[in-house]
Amino acid sequence: MERVAKSLRNKVISPSEAAEFIKPGMCLLCSGFSQIGYPSAIPKEIARLGKATDLFLITSAGVGDGLDGILSQAGLVSGRAPYQGNKWMRNAVNDGKVSYCDYHLSDLPVKLRSSAGPKPDIAIIECLSVDEKGFVPVCSVGAVECFAALCDKILLEVNYSLSDKLVGMHDIYYVDGNCIPIHAPTDRIGTTYVPCDPARILGIVETEGSGEYPKFKETDEISEKLARNIIGFLKQEVAAGRQPQSLRPFQSGFGSVANATLYGLSQDFKGLRMYSEVIQDGALFLIKSGVVAEASATCLCLSKEGQKELFENIDFYRSRIVIRPQEISNHPEIIRRLQIISINTPIEVDLYGNVNSTHICGTKTYNGVGGSGDFARNAGLTIFATGSLAKGGKISCVVPMVSHVDHTEHDVDVIVTEWGVADLRWKSPKERAELIIENCAHPEYRPMLRSYFQRACARCNGQTPHLLEEALSWHERFRTTGTMKPSEGG
Amino acid sequence: MERVAKSLRNKVISPSEAAEFIKPGMCLLCSGFSQIGYPSAIPKEIARLGKATDLFLITSAGVGDGLDGILSQAGLVSGRAPYQGNKWMRNAVNDGKVSYCDYHLSDLPVKLRSSAGPKPDIAIIECLSVDEKGFVPVCSVGAVECFAALCDKILLEVNYSLSDKLVGMHDIYYVDGNCIPIHAPTDRIGTTYVPCDPARILGIVETEGSGEYPKFKETDEISEKLARNIIGFLKQEVAAGRQPQSLRPFQSGFGSVANATLYGLSQDFKGLRMYSEVIQDGALFLIKSGVVAEASATCLCLSKEGQKELFENIDFYRSRIVIRPQEISNHPEIIRRLQIISINTPIEVDLYGNVNSTHICGTKTYNGVGGSGDFARNAGLTIFATGSLAKGGKISCVVPMVSHVDHTEHDVDVIVTEWGVADLRWKSPKERAELIIENCAHPEYRPMLRSYFQRACARCNGQTPHLLEEALSWHERFRTTGTMKPSEGG
Repeated sequence: MERVAKSLRNKVISPSEAAEFIKPGMCLLCSGFSQIGYPSAIPKEIARLGKATDLFLITSAGVGDGLDGILSQAGLVSGRAPYQGNKWMRNAVNDGKVSYCDYHLSDLPVKLRSSAGPKPDIAIIECLSVDEKGFVPVCSVGAVECFAALCDKILLEVNYSLSDKLVGMHDIYYVDGNCIPIHAPTDRIGTTYVPCDPARILGIVETEGSGEYPKFKETDEISEKLARNIIGFLKQEVAAGRQPQSLRPFQSGFGSVANATLYGLSQDFKGLRMYSEVIQDGALFLIKSGVVAEASATCLCLSKEGQKELFENIDFYRSRIVIRPQEISNHPEIIRRLQIISINTPIEVDLYGNVNSTHICGTKTYNGVGGSGDFARNAGLTIFATGSLAKGGKISCVVPMVSHVDHTEHDVDVIVTEWGVADLRWKSPKERAELIIENCAHPEYRPMLRSYFQRACARCNGQTPHLLEEALSWHERFRTTGTMKPSEGG
Repeated sequence: MERVAKSLRNKVISPSEAAEFIKPGMCLLCSGFSQIGYPSAIPKEIARLGKATDLFLITSAGVGDGLDGILSQAGLVSGRAPYQGNKWMRNAVNDGKVSYCDYHLSDLPVKLRSSAGPKPDIAIIECLSVDEKGFVPVCSVGAVECFAALCDKILLEVNYSLSDKLVGMHDIYYVDGNCIPIHAPTDRIGTTYVPCDPARILGIVETEGSGEYPKFKETDEISEKLARNIIGFLKQEVAAGRQPQSLRPFQSGFGSVANATLYGLSQDFKGLRMYSEVIQDGALFLIKSGVVAEASATCLCLSKEGQKELFENIDFYRSRIVIRPQEISNHPEIIRRLQIISINTPIEVDLYGNVNSTHICGTKTYNGVGGSGDFARNAGLTIFATGSLAKGGKISCVVPMVSHVDHTEHDVDVIVTEWGVADLRWKSPKERAELIIENCAHPEYRPMLRSYFQRACARCNGQTPHLLEEALSWHERFRTTGTMKPSEGG
């Protein structure tokens, strides 16, 4: 397969030639989702040149050291959207060096098209191949179809290290004010490539990719208990007739809880369907074993071994996996229509079912809200699952009041920890508090939570009892003493 | 017109006969949205009999004294969803006598169908007329089509006081997993009545309605300034090419700010389209004058004079207004597709763009979240507009941290007060804080807000600077001293 069509070979340039296009103050639209498919050769040269200061960097979602890391360390970025989770970028944001605007991922294309923000100057997109009709994306699509439509100056990084067997797995569709005709996760409604007029292509850089692969933490005992609790709950839903035998299509977030849940599902379910943001190694395993019959995502977030498995059995997977734009994978229309089961991992939850997904102690960003809000608000069943403790027990992930709200009490159906399940549906905040304390909080923190709740009920009652002067004191204690636990003396 | 078909006349019973069907512990599904179209004759008898204790009361949305008031005063209700705003019910909730679960209005039918909550026993629905095919709703639809589908025991209150000229204005459509084929606000896709097998009708009560009409506060100077600021902002959006001349379809909440905005729009716009929850008197005026070309809602929330105007010119209005189920008027699919401009009134906002729509000082419910979350999350442009002060200046509606979050920083595009506009799009939380303080807060509170923000930046910086021990102190000061202002002494 010809990665760069003959007619476009005159556009091939070196990374440093490409980097020369990038000027101070520009707004760059870069591919990349969950570390997958971000350009790295050109950013490396931008950083080396060091001239393009004050950049506004927009990506599809999370990117790695080769983009967020290298540019923020070089001090070249002053604005960032819609997502970050890279440690260098996170530090730059929290230190006040980068202004970061945290948007729902389905909203990014909407926000870009409405043009109230920075005017995009140049798109830098990693792709598999390019010809006169357009380009084929890599293992993530994200918002590249939107970037290519909005930007009349495009730099492509053609990644030769990626197998061309990927061709045919994408489904590129533009939202145009009509119904989006998806009724099952792998319905195909668009093209297998991103249409792109060659006149808009500034240059093409040939690369071997970033060489990075996502790494997954081994699932630990806590994750496995959590997964068992989620699966137990889903089995009850089937038994009660509230879910079909093979469940509604599900979305599962990123990380070890998600992976453990996926592996756990294989024991009790078959014919499952995923309509998710990311497909991780765990999902690939389930597709292979037939537990998952079909899967849709905007990103194949696979380890090196996962990619090997994918490409060795590509014909099998190609008929069972679709890679879509994030505007479609996370679209409220489809999430509501398919009555998705949404499973995400928060930082902390509170007594009344509010969820913090983004901030440490209310002030420091840890990562963006990502797609969790697209799913939580519009899904048929919204589950948040977290370990009950963090930092070796110095932090309780169940607190009187979350220090930042990303998902409101109106959106959260079920909270799961390694201790159990709190089914909050149709419960008042006070009823939720009892369930969350007794079923989900770590036993070590339960007496403190009970005390807070009882004293709040006694003093003010109301719909959502709180002692406002004490509501955030656990976080404040952590900030000043390093633990949410009160000192031994009192 | 025959209000009760001959074949169904044998089902006509008295209100007290109907009330005898209601037993302790039942879950009732009652019509009613924004005080419009709730059953009143049967509830009056339920209250008089006083036997049906421990009721779980589900309505479409807000209902008045004749339902929420009379049943909560009689102490017969122990559970309530998805919305309340009636003072008697609110007090019962805040006193802990009623467990209240606050759901997004588009979510109610979804939640009911998934049957994880109380099992519905009897639906009590006010209607205009009934025959073998089904019934015609009154000026609100709300969730009655869902109630009638889920409940095999239905009591109807046929309201003879309402003009039968209303026939033909409704569009009843059931969500069935397919695309909802609405592409313009008044697209008709369903039936003009709610299909209902007569076998499910327990009894029919003939009434003259509750006699209640919604009352609107006269628009005051603050509302007019607010409306001018909203309209000025929208004109800028048109000038910048971000909105078409006649704007995207808009949703506007309930109350005097909404009414003032509607009147204000008439000076600068024409051919507008509404896709909203409620149509108030102000909207009717705009339709008459041609400023609004078409309007969709789930409720015609009209004063006595408004209803008179409607029925005197019914043929004119019938071709320009559609009354839909709340699942459709508030559906994420349509809100996102039409790129709705959403305008709602919060209780308070904070420095970083979080919005509280439901709770007074974080603990007492004032009203439910209603449809504001359906619109805020999925709209094309989300505006929250409020006066900068409440309680004669003792409360600042701009606070360091809201005491309850109903709309997160990720969802709020623009905040408007009588002082100005804070356009938060593409801004980081710190950038938002400057805009909200300088453009929106009341000048009397600006020094306190600046001080908080500056000290928070100095101490912790981060993405969202806060002093957690002080973040909610304004509310606590109001609770203990009756004002958010510090005492003269310091």
